[in-house]
Amino acid sequence: MEFWGAKVEPKRDFDGDVSEGEQVHITQASLDFEGDKKDRADLFVSVGGRTKYFIGSLSQENTCHMKLDLIFEEKFVLSHTLNSGSVHFTGYTTPSVKSLVTDQGTSGTSQK
Amino acid sequence: MEFWGAKVEPKRDFDGDVSEGEQVHITQASLDFEGDKKDRADLFVSVGGRTKYFIGSLSQENTCHMKLDLIFEEKFVLSHTLNSGSVHFTGYTTPSVKSLVTDQGTSGTSQK
Amino acid sequence: MEFWGAKVEPKRDFDGDVSEGEQVHITQASLDFEGDKKDRADLFVSVGGRTKYFIGSLSQENTCHMKLDLIFEEKFVLSHTLNSGSVHFTGYTTPSVKSLVTDQGTSGTSQK
Amino acid sequence: MEFWGAKVEPKRDFDGDVSEGEQVHITQASLDFEGDKKDRADLFVSVGGRTKYFIGSLSQENTCHMKLDLIFEEKFVLSHTLNSGSVHFTGYTTPSVKSLVTDQGTSGTSQK
Amino acid sequence: MEFWGAKVEPKRDFDGDVSEGEQVHITQASLDFEGDKKDRADLFVSVGGRTKYFIGSLSQENTCHMKLDLIFEEKFVLSHTLNSGSVHFTGYTTPSVKSLVTDQGTSGTSQK
Repeated sequence: MEFWGAKVEPKRDFDGDVSEGEQVHITQASLDFEGDKKDRADLFVSVGGRTKYFIGSLSQENTCHMKLDLIFEEKFVLSHTLNSGSVHFTGYTTPSVKSLVTDQGTSGTSQK
Repeated sequence: MEFWGAKVEPKRDFDGDVSEGEQVHITQASLDFEGDKKDRADLFVSVGGRTKYFIGSLSQENTCHMKLDLIFEEKFVLSHTLNSGSVHFTGYTTPSVKSLVTDQGTSGTSQK
Repeated sequence: MEFWGAKVEPKRDFDGDVSEGEQVHITQASLDFEGDKKDRADLFVSVGGRTKYFIGSLSQENTCHMKLDLIFEEKFVLSHTLNSGSVHFTGYTTPSVKSLVTDQGTSGTSQK
Repeated sequence: MEFWGAKVEPKRDFDGDVSEGEQVHITQASLDFEGDKKDRADLFVSVGGRTKYFIGSLSQENTCHMKLDLIFEEKFVLSHTLNSGSVHFTGYTTPSVKSLVTDQGTSGTSQK
Repeated sequence: MEFWGAKVEPKRDFDGDVSEGEQVHITQASLDFEGDKKDRADLFVSVGGRTKYFIGSLSQENTCHMKLDLIFEEKFVLSHTLNSGSVHFTGYTTPSVKSLVTDQGTSGTSQK
C-alpha cells in the first residue's frame, strides 16, 4: 500500500497506469487554481478508451475539494475543463483483489 | 475489480445488470446538465421491481455531485426526474461476498 | 449482500428487522417531502428499546440527503420529526462478522 | 458488531470504554441543541490522557451533523464546548483486528 | 489499531513516521484557528520527498473540518499555509496489508 497522487494539468489527459497485481484507489480531488473564483473545473474519468464519465465539479466559489471512492485495476484517464490551473487527485495503491486471491502465499490462502 | 459507470438519460429507467459472482458498488453521482440552475434531479433506485427509493437530489444551484455507497448483487434500476440532461453514476465492481465464500481456491479458503 | 431500503413514515417508528447471520448497513438518508422548505426532519435511531440517538437533520432548504455509516446486527428503530413527508433510508445487508467467524465452510476457515 | 452511541453532555468529559477484544468505530456526530443558531460546538477527542485533538465544529446555522471515521481500541475521551445542549456520537463496535488475528477459532485461522 | 493524531503547526512541515508493519490512516482534518474568518489553510501532503499534493482547504468562513481517506506505509509530510493557527489531523493506525500477508500466524494464514 503506497500513497498515490496525480497533478492533472489543463487541456490534456492524464494517463493513469496501474502496476500488475495492484489497484489504484482515488479518494480525494482538490482544485489548485488562483484565478476567477467562478471558474469551474468539471472532472472526468474514463477507462479503456470507453465512455467518459463526469464525476463532479470544483470551483473556488463553491467546493474546492471533494472526497471520492474510485478504484482502478486497469489504465484510466483523468481530465478536467479548466484552461489554467490544475486538479490534484490523491489516494493510495493496494494489492488487487485478484492478486490476493490467486497468488500463492498471500492473505487467506493456506500454504502447503 | 473494474471501473463501473452509467449515464442515466432523462425519462427512462436505466437497467443495471450484475454479472454472476459480482457486485456493483456505486460511489458517486454527478449532474451533467447545463440548463436552468434551479432544475433539480431527484435520484431513485429500485431492486427486483419492488419499492422505488429516493436517494438524493442534484442541481447546479446546490450540489451537482454526491458521494454514495450502494451495493447491488442483483438487477437494479436507476432513474431521475430531469426532462433533459443526464446523471452519471460511477463506482466499481467487486467479486461478490458469496462468490468469495463458496468458490474453491478463493480468498480465505484452504485448498486441498 | 442485498440492497436494503426503508421508507420511514411520519409520526410512527420504523421497526428494522435483521435476519439471523446478517447485518444491515445503512449508508444514505433522503428527504421525500414537498412542503415548507424550512421544515426540518430530525432523524433518530435506537436499539433494543434503549436510548434514542439523534443522527442528523434534513430539510429542503439545507440538506435533503446525507451519507451515513450505521450497522445493525439486532432489531433497530428509525424515526423522524416531520408531520408529513417521509424519509428514505437505503443501504445493503451483509453476512454478519459473527456468522463469517463461526460458520463452517465460510470465508477464512479451513474446511477439513 | 453492535450499535454504539453516546450523548456527550456539556461541561464534562465523556469517558468511552472499549471492551477487551473489541474496537469502537464512531461514524457520526450530531448537535442536539435548540438555542442560539450561531452557538458552535467544537468537538474534541483524546486517548490515554494525551493530547486533545479538535475534530470539527457543529452549529445549527452551518452544519448540525457530520460524518466521522474514528476507531478506538483503548479508553478515549469525547468533549465539546457548548454550555448547554449535547452532542450525540453514533457508530458501532467490531471485533478488534488484534482479536481476529490472535484468537483461536476466529476468522481466517485454521482450527486443528 | 490505535488512535492517531497530529497537530500541524504553521510554517513548518510535520514529519509523519510510520512504524514497521503498520500504516497510518488519516480520516479527518480540522482547523484550530480563531483569527480572520476568511483566512484559508491550504493543506498539503507529500511522500518520500517527492511531489507536494494539495488535498483541500479549510477556513472558518467555509469549511472548518473535512473528511479524508489517506493511507501511508512510509514517512509522509503534512503542511498548511496559515501563518498562525494549527490544523489537527486525526485517524488511526492499522497493521499494514504487507504484514498481514507475510507474517506467520496472522489473519487468514493456516498455522502448521
